[in-house]
Amino acid sequence: MRIYASVPFSRVKITGDFWHERLETVLTRTIPSQLKMLEKSDIRGSIKLPKPVPPLTQPRRPNGFTVQVFWDSDIGKWIEAASYALSHRRDPDVEAEIDAMVDDLAKAQADDGYLNCWYLQREPENRWTNIRDNHEMYNAGHLLEGAVAYYQATGKDRFLKIMERFCDHIAATFGPNPGQKRGYPGHQEIELALVRAWHATGKRKYLDLATYFIDERGNTDGVEHYFDIEARERGQDPAAYSFAGHEYSQAHLPVRQQTKVVGHAVRAMYMYAAMADLAAEHNDAALKAACEALWRDVTERRMYVTGGFGPSEHNEGFTKDFDLPNDTSYAETCASVAMVFWAARMLNLDLDGQYADILELALYNNSLAGLSQDGEHYFYDNKLESDGSHHRWAWHFCPCCTMNVARLVASVAGYFYGVADSEIAVHLYGGAETTLPVAGGQVTLSETSNYPWDGKIRIDLTPEGTGPFTLSLRIPSWSEGATAKVNGEAIDMMIERGYLKITRDWAAGDTVDLDLPMRPERLYAHPDVRHDVGRVALRRGPLVYCCEQHDNDQPVNRLRLPRNAALTAKAKPDLLGGITVIEAAAKAEDANAWANHLYATKRAPEIDTVLTAVPYYIWCNREPNPMQVWVQE
Amino acid sequence: MRIYASVPFSRVKITGDFWHERLETVLTRTIPSQLKMLEKSDIRGSIKLPKPVPPLTQPRRPNGFTVQVFWDSDIGKWIEAASYALSHRRDPDVEAEIDAMVDDLAKAQADDGYLNCWYLQREPENRWTNIRDNHEMYNAGHLLEGAVAYYQATGKDRFLKIMERFCDHIAATFGPNPGQKRGYPGHQEIELALVRAWHATGKRKYLDLATYFIDERGNTDGVEHYFDIEARERGQDPAAYSFAGHEYSQAHLPVRQQTKVVGHAVRAMYMYAAMADLAAEHNDAALKAACEALWRDVTERRMYVTGGFGPSEHNEGFTKDFDLPNDTSYAETCASVAMVFWAARMLNLDLDGQYADILELALYNNSLAGLSQDGEHYFYDNKLESDGSHHRWAWHFCPCCTMNVARLVASVAGYFYGVADSEIAVHLYGGAETTLPVAGGQVTLSETSNYPWDGKIRIDLTPEGTGPFTLSLRIPSWSEGATAKVNGEAIDMMIERGYLKITRDWAAGDTVDLDLPMRPERLYAHPDVRHDVGRVALRRGPLVYCCEQHDNDQPVNRLRLPRNAALTAKAKPDLLGGITVIEAAAKAEDANAWANHLYATKRAPEIDTVLTAVPYYIWCNREPNPMQVWVQE
Repeated sequence: MRIYASVPFSRVKITGDFWHERLETVLTRTIPSQLKMLEKSDIRGSIKLPKPVPPLTQPRRPNGFTVQVFWDSDIGKWIEAASYALSHRRDPDVEAEIDAMVDDLAKAQADDGYLNCWYLQREPENRWTNIRDNHEMYNAGHLLEGAVAYYQATGKDRFLKIMERFCDHIAATFGPNPGQKRGYPGHQEIELALVRAWHATGKRKYLDLATYFIDERGNTDGVEHYFDIEARERGQDPAAYSFAGHEYSQAHLPVRQQTKVVGHAVRAMYMYAAMADLAAEHNDAALKAACEALWRDVTERRMYVTGGFGPSEHNEGFTKDFDLPNDTSYAETCASVAMVFWAARMLNLDLDGQYADILELALYNNSLAGLSQDGEHYFYDNKLESDGSHHRWAWHFCPCCTMNVARLVASVAGYFYGVADSEIAVHLYGGAETTLPVAGGQVTLSETSNYPWDGKIRIDLTPEGTGPFTLSLRIPSWSEGATAKVNGEAIDMMIERGYLKITRDWAAGDTVDLDLPMRPERLYAHPDVRHDVGRVALRRGPLVYCCEQHDNDQPVNRLRLPRNAALTAKAKPDLLGGITVIEAAAKAEDANAWANHLYATKRAPEIDTVLTAVPYYIWCNREPNPMQVWVQE
Repeated sequence: MRIYASVPFSRVKITGDFWHERLETVLTRTIPSQLKMLEKSDIRGSIKLPKPVPPLTQPRRPNGFTVQVFWDSDIGKWIEAASYALSHRRDPDVEAEIDAMVDDLAKAQADDGYLNCWYLQREPENRWTNIRDNHEMYNAGHLLEGAVAYYQATGKDRFLKIMERFCDHIAATFGPNPGQKRGYPGHQEIELALVRAWHATGKRKYLDLATYFIDERGNTDGVEHYFDIEARERGQDPAAYSFAGHEYSQAHLPVRQQTKVVGHAVRAMYMYAAMADLAAEHNDAALKAACEALWRDVTERRMYVTGGFGPSEHNEGFTKDFDLPNDTSYAETCASVAMVFWAARMLNLDLDGQYADILELALYNNSLAGLSQDGEHYFYDNKLESDGSHHRWAWHFCPCCTMNVARLVASVAGYFYGVADSEIAVHLYGGAETTLPVAGGQVTLSETSNYPWDGKIRIDLTPEGTGPFTLSLRIPSWSEGATAKVNGEAIDMMIERGYLKITRDWAAGDTVDLDLPMRPERLYAHPDVRHDVGRVALRRGPLVYCCEQHDNDQPVNRLRLPRNAALTAKAKPDLLGGITVIEAAAKAEDANAWANHLYATKRAPEIDTVLTAVPYYIWCNREPNPMQVWVQE
């Protein structure tokens, strides 16, 4: 396998308006306001051991679970997001706050390295007795990612050392050797965190631990399922588990045998990301093949048109093929964010535009919808249709999505470029500048565009000491008739699996002009997606659109877009900070003709109207109102 | 107001095939099998006091509620249904079983008349402390209905006397006088039962108690809401009630001020039925006007096309206008059965075909769907669309619907006729014979037809000693171009509010032939029913149809019925016991063209297919399979 490396966000400067605005909002509003919410919600206080023990603010469920069990992860995720902010701009106040958190964690850590504030405060005797439900390793993973990010942003390694001690404790506790527990996380996350720690520290034991967790998962070859052993040891009947069969945590089968995406969507996506990491680390074809099978399954059968995943609230996850209800869609923000992580890793394994297409889809739509324009309101679940009752909230009793979208946006520049020996791949557009090592030298590459509103892209190259190399420019699957020029001269479009390949001996001052036609277009769903039958969605470039009531005269649920109606893109600089809307002549049944009837043998006459659609990611930034992605055709 | 009286089922003989088959099934299979299930599920044992106390088979909810709290009602409803069976055919074994139940209830009854087996067994000190949640009066109502029915079927009054003692106790406990509780049932039901007791015994105090409950309900004029007083006395915070505001039990406003149907659908329907009863008893125009406003609200905004009510599982009830999702529809069988009760009472208040139309709709569709062809399997909630995962069950932890549909079918003959001084109204057709007092004499009236499969109806009249009277024959709103003949001669169709009025000095041997054309037709929903947008339902006569996968080559969710496709009714004597299906040339998108794509910018070509629809009431009597009422047009 040819493995590509991502170019870290800290080496890429966002220059384009779209992401610059989102990034500034996250840095100046989201991250500071989240710190306030962590304090207000007692999450900040929960790591101050031994006192006070925060009271239970949420009732425990029958299995003893409470969301407070994963408050450590919220601390970890905020530190990670805040560290990304520090990479953009150092800020002594933020550093002081993180250092204070690290102090608290240092005080809390047990002598043997164990670190979980919930257990240490409330039931230290029960640590590692319920890794199926109680998130000790999930918390460890997020703290570890925070520690790595803080180290990379500031060079300070105290937090990383704390987490290394904890990881060493975990590695001693879990494993295949006598006296060790043959367990693995109930909520995957630590696996990909350990790979990041391996990259940050060069300590192979972290890679080995991640590998163990992935390899052991779902293993019942000659042994009882670990979660069942553990349940019996707690005095619980394994069969009474509310997610019997362990599909919920993708522990129903060894991972290399998994071909269907099942269970809790966030757990799944984090695990697939780790599998892709390990496939690359170990050149593991079986693991890569499993990733590919799971990828096909989710993208061909179980994905919303907005790049959301997991329709069901019950398991926060997957149900069955083509089951994608719109008004009850769960499509958790975290799951889309995690899909970006997975897709980026697949792209490194295998430079194929299908991965970048989904990365872009999940990023610009379901993920970005999770964060309000003001940077301080959120969606946890993302509906594709609302009667007006689904609103953004300022906080959530389970605030996982808030910090996930913050850390994604704060590091979004890290998804733009990939590099391999003598090739540079440009995955995303939108104004980004970087200097990369390639073909024996380095090249400064500056991409300028008004993406995602316009598909006209210019790339300036300034190589230094490089031999010939290939510039691989992603041609999104949504763009038809893309053209390119090098130094003003049209070139043949040699597109290989979604990337235009331009191999040259590049010289300083070389430019590439890429034109990705961005036409508003209709999308239809597979006829087995019963909720979308007879309906159409709108897309322009990477953005999926929706109809909000605010922009439409007729109730959005009554709108009908005739098959032959032309779609027009219109820039609206004064609307929602400057967006492009899609307009079309449309029809709506005249409800006046329905007075006093709920059902009738004839349809009412239709009246003419105009349908106006706005990008999905920006919906619900005005007063609450009805919204619809799939419109009757 | 001119008040019509229903003709009791025991005076009407069902001669037509359709109802005869359903009735025989209920008498020979449903009622006996329900007795077995009552025994198996410990409900039968729960009235054997003082021992054994049945263990809690369902966890209590936070408010202390468990479904076992209403097991008395299940006993009452079974006795009622079984008593109807006895009215058809005496059966000493069934009588012995009811007598044994009555013995148990007699033993259980407290010295002061109180009778509630749950409280008497477990917490006698807490009686009447939570009438909001704990169903003491609901149970009393169903036991009372059972007692009245048993008395009417057999002349045995022991059970009725027990219940009279209990009602006397309730009347002493609740009321406006000093020392009395100003309460009323949290789950309405006893109100209509008390009216039945008043009719059966002639004791006006029962009517007075029903009137008190209805008049006092939701009264906060100078007093705190009774359910809040009661909650505080239990040490509970009234504001912590999960259905705060008391819309759940329609106690949010005095009933005469209610204009929107809200809350728990079964509670609502039972209450509206009682309101209609009392409007008739007291000639109460305000109460009648409230019934009419509520009727308009539910039928014009909140009713499924199948005559189901209450879309939400959360409150087992109403949500908002036009919110009628198909795949998550709750549409409880009990609510439709109760709608039949209410509609019949509205029809007595006011002979208007709109009431009979809804009565028929609810009866033949959502209600009847609740009972399987074999008479031993049930639907509690009635979906209008299923991916194949919604099945009938042999019993339910909350078996209210099973006995409700049994008592409805066992007494269905009671909904066919109404009578007032010199008028006979025929509400339903399907083969029914009765002898009625009218216009100073009596008339034997025999209606023969193959309804609901055929709209050709013949009525033979044999008057004895009557003066001229009016025969009012319902012309359903679904029938266009109805014609009638008297003694073979066509008559003018003098239709008044849905009834053809034929006034004559009738003679023995007179016949009326009524022809109600029964064409398969399309139904459309109000455009604000967003789940039905672009879709069509099929109806023929009183029956709403649905597409089951068994009868269709293409997956039902892919079927598209073109606007101009002809609908053909075809009798299928060998299918499901003999039904008429609707067939039409239809289209379906070719899923083969969708290989490996979930979304595409073009629709796939359509292939020709045939759509076959079966009556909704009979769905899910073969192997589980997908089903759809609303088909894409």
